[in-house]
Amino acid sequence: MHINPTATSAAQSSACHEPTVVMLPPTPELHKVCLPPPLTTVEKLRHRLSEIFFPDDPLHRFKGQKPLRRLFLGLQFFFPVFQWGPNYTLRLLKSDFVSGVTIASLAIPQGISYAKLANLPPIIGLYSSFVPPLVYSILGSSRHLAVGPVSIASLVMGTMLSEAVSYTNEPILYLQLAFTATFFAGVFQASLGFLRLGFVIDFLSKATLIGFMAGAAVIVALQQLKGLFGISHFTNKMQLIPVLSSVFHHKNEWSWQTIVFGVSFLVLLLTTRQISMRKPKLFWISAAAPLTSVVLSTILVVIFKSKLHNIQTFPGMSNDKIGHLPKGLNPPSANMLSFSGTHLALAIKTGILTGMLSLTEGIAVGRTFASLKNYQVDGNKEMMAIGLMNMAGSCTSCFVTTGSFSRSAVNYNAGAQTVVSNIIMATAVCITLLFLMPLFHYTPNLILAAIIITAVIGLIDYQAAYKLWKVDKLDCMACLCSFIGVLFISVPIGLAIAVGISVFKILLHVTRPNTIALGNIPGTQIYQNLSRYAEAARVPSFLILAVEAPIYFANSTYLQERIMRWIREEEEWLASNNSGEIKYVILDMTAVTAIDTSGLDMISELRKLLDQRSLKLVLANPVSSVMEKLHKSKILDSFGLEGLYLTVGEAVADISSSWKT
Amino acid sequence: MHINPTATSAAQSSACHEPTVVMLPPTPELHKVCLPPPLTTVEKLRHRLSEIFFPDDPLHRFKGQKPLRRLFLGLQFFFPVFQWGPNYTLRLLKSDFVSGVTIASLAIPQGISYAKLANLPPIIGLYSSFVPPLVYSILGSSRHLAVGPVSIASLVMGTMLSEAVSYTNEPILYLQLAFTATFFAGVFQASLGFLRLGFVIDFLSKATLIGFMAGAAVIVALQQLKGLFGISHFTNKMQLIPVLSSVFHHKNEWSWQTIVFGVSFLVLLLTTRQISMRKPKLFWISAAAPLTSVVLSTILVVIFKSKLHNIQTFPGMSNDKIGHLPKGLNPPSANMLSFSGTHLALAIKTGILTGMLSLTEGIAVGRTFASLKNYQVDGNKEMMAIGLMNMAGSCTSCFVTTGSFSRSAVNYNAGAQTVVSNIIMATAVCITLLFLMPLFHYTPNLILAAIIITAVIGLIDYQAAYKLWKVDKLDCMACLCSFIGVLFISVPIGLAIAVGISVFKILLHVTRPNTIALGNIPGTQIYQNLSRYAEAARVPSFLILAVEAPIYFANSTYLQERIMRWIREEEEWLASNNSGEIKYVILDMTAVTAIDTSGLDMISELRKLLDQRSLKLVLANPVSSVMEKLHKSKILDSFGLEGLYLTVGEAVADISSSWKT
Repeated sequence: MHINPTATSAAQSSACHEPTVVMLPPTPELHKVCLPPPLTTVEKLRHRLSEIFFPDDPLHRFKGQKPLRRLFLGLQFFFPVFQWGPNYTLRLLKSDFVSGVTIASLAIPQGISYAKLANLPPIIGLYSSFVPPLVYSILGSSRHLAVGPVSIASLVMGTMLSEAVSYTNEPILYLQLAFTATFFAGVFQASLGFLRLGFVIDFLSKATLIGFMAGAAVIVALQQLKGLFGISHFTNKMQLIPVLSSVFHHKNEWSWQTIVFGVSFLVLLLTTRQISMRKPKLFWISAAAPLTSVVLSTILVVIFKSKLHNIQTFPGMSNDKIGHLPKGLNPPSANMLSFSGTHLALAIKTGILTGMLSLTEGIAVGRTFASLKNYQVDGNKEMMAIGLMNMAGSCTSCFVTTGSFSRSAVNYNAGAQTVVSNIIMATAVCITLLFLMPLFHYTPNLILAAIIITAVIGLIDYQAAYKLWKVDKLDCMACLCSFIGVLFISVPIGLAIAVGISVFKILLHVTRPNTIALGNIPGTQIYQNLSRYAEAARVPSFLILAVEAPIYFANSTYLQERIMRWIREEEEWLASNNSGEIKYVILDMTAVTAIDTSGLDMISELRKLLDQRSLKLVLANPVSSVMEKLHKSKILDSFGLEGLYLTVGEAVADISSSWKT
Repeated sequence: MHINPTATSAAQSSACHEPTVVMLPPTPELHKVCLPPPLTTVEKLRHRLSEIFFPDDPLHRFKGQKPLRRLFLGLQFFFPVFQWGPNYTLRLLKSDFVSGVTIASLAIPQGISYAKLANLPPIIGLYSSFVPPLVYSILGSSRHLAVGPVSIASLVMGTMLSEAVSYTNEPILYLQLAFTATFFAGVFQASLGFLRLGFVIDFLSKATLIGFMAGAAVIVALQQLKGLFGISHFTNKMQLIPVLSSVFHHKNEWSWQTIVFGVSFLVLLLTTRQISMRKPKLFWISAAAPLTSVVLSTILVVIFKSKLHNIQTFPGMSNDKIGHLPKGLNPPSANMLSFSGTHLALAIKTGILTGMLSLTEGIAVGRTFASLKNYQVDGNKEMMAIGLMNMAGSCTSCFVTTGSFSRSAVNYNAGAQTVVSNIIMATAVCITLLFLMPLFHYTPNLILAAIIITAVIGLIDYQAAYKLWKVDKLDCMACLCSFIGVLFISVPIGLAIAVGISVFKILLHVTRPNTIALGNIPGTQIYQNLSRYAEAARVPSFLILAVEAPIYFANSTYLQERIMRWIREEEEWLASNNSGEIKYVILDMTAVTAIDTSGLDMISELRKLLDQRSLKLVLANPVSSVMEKLHKSKILDSFGLEGLYLTVGEAVADISSSWKT
């Protein structure tokens, strides 16, 4: 396995793990560049796959345990309820009860509103706040997640489905599509978790999401002007221009009572939100505001029924259109899932997109509160929990649900200790469904519009966008593109553009990597960027270059050209300063974290090109995988004794000392 | 700009370029981590753009020159003929004449064959060997490129167009589409060069191309069984299964005379190819073989006309179907370009794909021979040359052309010195077109099939594929996928899959980067991989981790989990060995070549998590761009004095010495 058969094996020390690449040490301090420990292809594959799919080594707690203990640990692993269940106390229940009731008072009006956002009958929003939280409380590992419908996923589902099917003309088909999409969302989420492909959601970077959510929030807020102004003819489209023109082309439909009524409640809700934001201890003010507003506005409508006859109230709550949605608890809906027909592709697409978005929100929210309370949330397990909860939901008349940011924050502030708060909330929703539904008959539309506007305004995070601009211009561009894409084109295309830009950014970094010239910091073995450290000094006869990226097909041509340009410029500079000439080009490979066959060809080609110019190419500190490939491709053979060193410092010292002798 | 306002400015030395991040040096040897020199956003953008689009600094030769000299240099820049023209000698002409005649003898039969491969009338192949070489000889910068139709581009064009339009039923429309696609190929190529986006073709990695070419070669070779076996009913499709079934479902059409005749010539051609490959000096044997075979077979057909009546000869050479293609030199075809109609999208798609493939071949061939003779080929200029040549070609009845690998190799071996050999070749083709066309009337189809098979068999490079397997399994997978994709699905999809895999490989490397634990090599300041260097020793109380990738949204979650797992495993190991505990976690950031806002959040989050466990996070040697972003995002402020060092060695030394005091 020696790369140079002329090197005697006496030169080997035991310092390398076998096999060894031998360098005859002309100076005693010289260290050899080792190959990584030899692994078979299968071992390598296993290692690589375990790094890809099991980076957190989820089975580590099972190692070295007895079978019975393993069974118990396995139960705990799959049903976190066994973890906290045995230690659950009355004190914890008290905290959970308070927080559960608090989030229920938020979940009921928000559930109704978000169902409306998805163009679904409001009662579906309540159904969705009942079954999924119960499923999650068995499977979920976050203690603070408040589960239910969320604005973004509802909005995307509403947009995508209503562009193909009219929810007013074909309500049954629309409902079928919504449940089917929910089912696919669940399948997608659960399989991401099961296949441990959770990193897929990482591709929705924070920058992308900031832009996307702001864009979606603007659109949704404007769409709610329909309810707030009492307009009855409104576009189904989700782009800025049709929405705005809908608002202003139907001025004759504006109803001043609705506007006055609506704007007052909006101001009320926004004020309570401000108060709670300034003083987190007063979180209950904004938490209680929506339900209070619903109750208040309903009472007002009932009292002034005669005078406020042109204020629209809920269609669909009384189920006169959907017809077969019985009152009471969630009716089964498995029979409404349809896996055939012309709209299947749409249902799958909608499912995947809403699944991905809701997963992103759920995981991010779970992680946020877990890190605040210093416990771990297992991403892949969470995905399975959220996925199974949506699959169960799709069979019990629920649409896409996940952990909501706003309600989870309220839950956290209200002192929730375990996932039992979700059970309390579900119970409250259950009571509402069983006994309080008739009371909603007079709830005006405008109050839902006000609740939705208040919720989505919180999604516009201009401060974060400004910070992106200050720190990373390309991230800010991704953010801006997803904002504009959502606003003017469509939700999926806006997201696709933003993901595209994020990926393009990675590719650009790889395609056009930095190369920097290094100099020695006098009196040390440290070599640093010449343009950054004024004390770093050029080493005569050497050109030391650091390549700051893996060398791939996508950049090998560029790097070769760029390195040749460095040499040309250095030679011109030396010639104009009469400072001798370059004899050695040292490539510091520390940051070359990978290489492929095109990269290997480039190295070999570069060596030949430099040979023709009587320049020597020297590699310093190749990382394991690069070293292995250099060795396997036999390129190292051509480098000879003076072609490979452990550090730039040793290369310079050794080559310089060989000149003296 | 100081990150720590408590650090006195007296601690600053002049060693950093301004602005400086201050570290109070407790030990005299300590070096500061500098920020890169401050640049405005515009300066940074300009620098970045110049690195992206002008990595070779093409204008460097114009710097500091007088206006007249600049004009001359500019002429030389755009028309390389001005570079070699003034020094052209009779001796050079002699070499060029010999090589030009040699490649003409190859170009004529190959031109005809490749036109047939693209389902075009054979004469188009000759036209394409006349105008484009002349255009290239003015604009091209490679001295050895032999220009004309090539197999891959012809094949792809033939496949893509004939799947939409039948070349037998609608020959005129087919021809229009071919010229239009050629025009778009030229526009695409020239604009890539003009916009300096040449790196786009780098995304067709060598591994992808090996698989793609082998797959295409297999398909084409099998398709030629039509000609070789004399089958008249044959599929237009390009997948393995329909082609194979076409061959074996028409056994009754097999003509034994054709088979005997064809296979003999095929054996002859393959033998001459083997001879030339073994002894490169005998290149002329394989170079002369195709034309000799064409002449020989034509003579045989003429002599045994009565007995060999069922041997098919060229359709279309006599233009009875195309009708309006006059004999003689290239007729203008600008009027046949159509930029409207239902097939425009197809023409554009075909143009872009064939343009990209032919560009890849042309540039790679040009670079190969340039590096053998030690001169430079400017990729972007070559793209413009090839693009303009195809745009000119599309107006003069030519289809897609580029530098052919096989003919360029013959050109090189025959001693070509300049691009004049292309002019000689074009002249020979011109003479053929003017006077020798009627002689081709009896040329049998089978000889073209034999020539094509011989040409494409050379594209199957199983040795390269085996080397890929040995060196880089993922590259080999990309190769295999493009092979299988082309064979069973379609040419564009096969290519798309292979490019997808290549890009996925880059993303995978970024998404799941290596993290390694470092140890000190005793007696040095070198810190190396603990699992690779047996002499490297753990430093007590420290966990030193190197992250081998930029930190991006795509890997920040993974890295955080992975680092926490390193800490957990290290703590478990230390506990089981009673070896104290970790106090400091040092992240060696040398290979973290970039960071985005998600990465910054991760660093900040990680610091908080470690704080909660009473562990200190220390960053060592962040590169310029990372340092700048750490500074701008104010994350450095929270790291304090002991949080940032220039090297791992200084971090360990300084922290250890602060414990002693």
